Amino acid sequence: MIITSHALRTFTEEVFLRMKFSANDAKQAADVLLSADLRGIDSHGVARLIGYVRLWEAGRINPTPDIRIVHETPSTATLDADAGLGLIVAVKAMEIAMQKAESVGTGWVAVRNSNHFGIAGYHAMLALPKDMIGMAMTNASPLVAPTFSKERLLGTNPIAVAIPAHHEPPFVADFATTTVANGKLEILQRKQQDAPEGWVQDMKGNISTDPSALKSGGALLPLGSDFQRSSYKGYCLGAWVDIFSAVLPAAGYGPWAPPFVNFLPLPENPPGQGLGHFLGAMRVDGFQPAQDFKNHMDTWIRRFRSAETIEGQEAVLIPGDPERAQEALREKEGIPLLEPVVKDLQEVAQKLNIENPFE
Amino acid sequence: MIITSHALRTFTEEVFLRMKFSANDAKQAADVLLSADLRGIDSHGVARLIGYVRLWEAGRINPTPDIRIVHETPSTATLDADAGLGLIVAVKAMEIAMQKAESVGTGWVAVRNSNHFGIAGYHAMLALPKDMIGMAMTNASPLVAPTFSKERLLGTNPIAVAIPAHHEPPFVADFATTTVANGKLEILQRKQQDAPEGWVQDMKGNISTDPSALKSGGALLPLGSDFQRSSYKGYCLGAWVDIFSAVLPAAGYGPWAPPFVNFLPLPENPPGQGLGHFLGAMRVDGFQPAQDFKNHMDTWIRRFRSAETIEGQEAVLIPGDPERAQEALREKEGIPLLEPVVKDLQEVAQKLNIENPFE
Repeated sequence: MIITSHALRTFTEEVFLRMKFSANDAKQAADVLLSADLRGIDSHGVARLIGYVRLWEAGRINPTPDIRIVHETPSTATLDADAGLGLIVAVKAMEIAMQKAESVGTGWVAVRNSNHFGIAGYHAMLALPKDMIGMAMTNASPLVAPTFSKERLLGTNPIAVAIPAHHEPPFVADFATTTVANGKLEILQRKQQDAPEGWVQDMKGNISTDPSALKSGGALLPLGSDFQRSSYKGYCLGAWVDIFSAVLPAAGYGPWAPPFVNFLPLPENPPGQGLGHFLGAMRVDGFQPAQDFKNHMDTWIRRFRSAETIEGQEAVLIPGDPERAQEALREKEGIPLLEPVVKDLQEVAQKLNIENPFE
Repeated sequence: MIITSHALRTFTEEVFLRMKFSANDAKQAADVLLSADLRGIDSHGVARLIGYVRLWEAGRINPTPDIRIVHETPSTATLDADAGLGLIVAVKAMEIAMQKAESVGTGWVAVRNSNHFGIAGYHAMLALPKDMIGMAMTNASPLVAPTFSKERLLGTNPIAVAIPAHHEPPFVADFATTTVANGKLEILQRKQQDAPEGWVQDMKGNISTDPSALKSGGALLPLGSDFQRSSYKGYCLGAWVDIFSAVLPAAGYGPWAPPFVNFLPLPENPPGQGLGHFLGAMRVDGFQPAQDFKNHMDTWIRRFRSAETIEGQEAVLIPGDPERAQEALREKEGIPLLEPVVKDLQEVAQKLNIENPFE
């Protein structure tokens, strides 16, 4: 089915209100999820709503957290999110990062004791209207095997970087540090198709083309896909994100990251609390006058966009282009929801006694 | 042949002295190159020395630059390196970053008008003795095609991140954002062997297994290797490094990065000056007490090191392990030099009238 972004937003906001989030926080959380659905990152939008509801039911998400700065310098801070919802916590962390950038040029905020924060790109893009570069990272449930490991020790640990331009739209990179995320494997399972080599390994650590290998005790592979194609670089990237997001603030790092799904138990004796994030903001005029920088970004973007393409390809894309195109389309034509997602949302509506808009 | 690190260091220092570098700078430059040779990154050690000499002969390297801060805030600065040698410039930039971190928690320095800075890891590791996290990036001669592009618009643009631990050695990631760097293709050309799929594309943009495809107008591929394995993520990484290193300080970005080899002409009408770098330092006690952080890093490292391995593999490695092992070995047993490198060094000795230690 296809639903307008307005109707989906209203419903999502209502869900968070019923979970006792404040009006502002409910609006904020809905905005992060809708942003994912509008931008075509369907795995991180309302498809996750039932997951958040279940974590809330299990007492793992605190709708009225006392989010505190526990350590800081003029350009850094660590927040304890008090088991708050990442969708909201990360926005508050980014606000602190931007205040610090306002005052000393850059601001860097690590967060512990949080939960899933949605798409990293949303948080990074908050910096753009202030002529700042935004960065966002988070650790996540362990699904990824480091090079040579049978065990899953890292999450899909995304990195987002948002950089403002002038006449051109901003540069927005936002990607998991694995070859692919789990969502792509699930699509192939449904279609009963093989996975390309380099996406997943089986429980023995052999590269597999079985899209259900992850479910059967295997692991996602780091960006690079195999040793010959330098998957250890993807391992470095995922490890870096884990350390910045979760070791810096003393959250649950590596295999101790709490699982997103409520039916998996929390890891025993974690060395830190909850999930961790790392947010950053840099004033571009910390390096050169803002207008000069933005003119250079226009030049950069136009040069790359006008590169000679491989036959059959229309254009070289700038990171953020595909998501921006989706957003324009879905604002106008509505957001498509898959059957299983609609079912989950109907279940949420019933659970929380909200009028069902999915009929 | 095999040469002691002491003899190679003395020779290298002498080379820089003959090029009219100050005693301190000659020592510094030699240390960066020797660090690469000791750590087994042979492509970035004395194998590059003749390249630096030729750039100096061509007037593209200034041995006595006036390196100036042209823009700054308490946590940021832009340096104009006055066509200085990156090996030395990046160390000075890192010192400024660390001073700023000392005073406000973090320091971030972008550099323009520079030259090749050697291994990124060297500069990042300078932060470790101060209980800081070090970061280093640089742009480089355009050899890499963005996704869908036939043209080379990016360099191998490395990222290095160095993170201190307590009893364990530090975490040191240092990698090019391409599947592989050019050096690996050159080895296969010498051996007349095919390259694995995913390293290089030919001049039409088709994935190629010809190790000389790059020389024949092709391009290196971003980390990920092909579209199905998410090479656009490697493109995002390389682009990010280019923008931080070269757009932020207004250096020669994208295809306007100056070539390392002196026989290629400089790009026409570049929008910025020379090569660019980006260096950062973050005090770990900007986030939590330093000792607590370093204990957590020990826990992180030990957990990863003890992960169950794939059959046939001895251990899961921590980024920096292989280089540290090489360093210990080569400090003791000497540094192996390939025949063509020895020839180049003999040529350098003759050019600069230095006693030839390579016999």
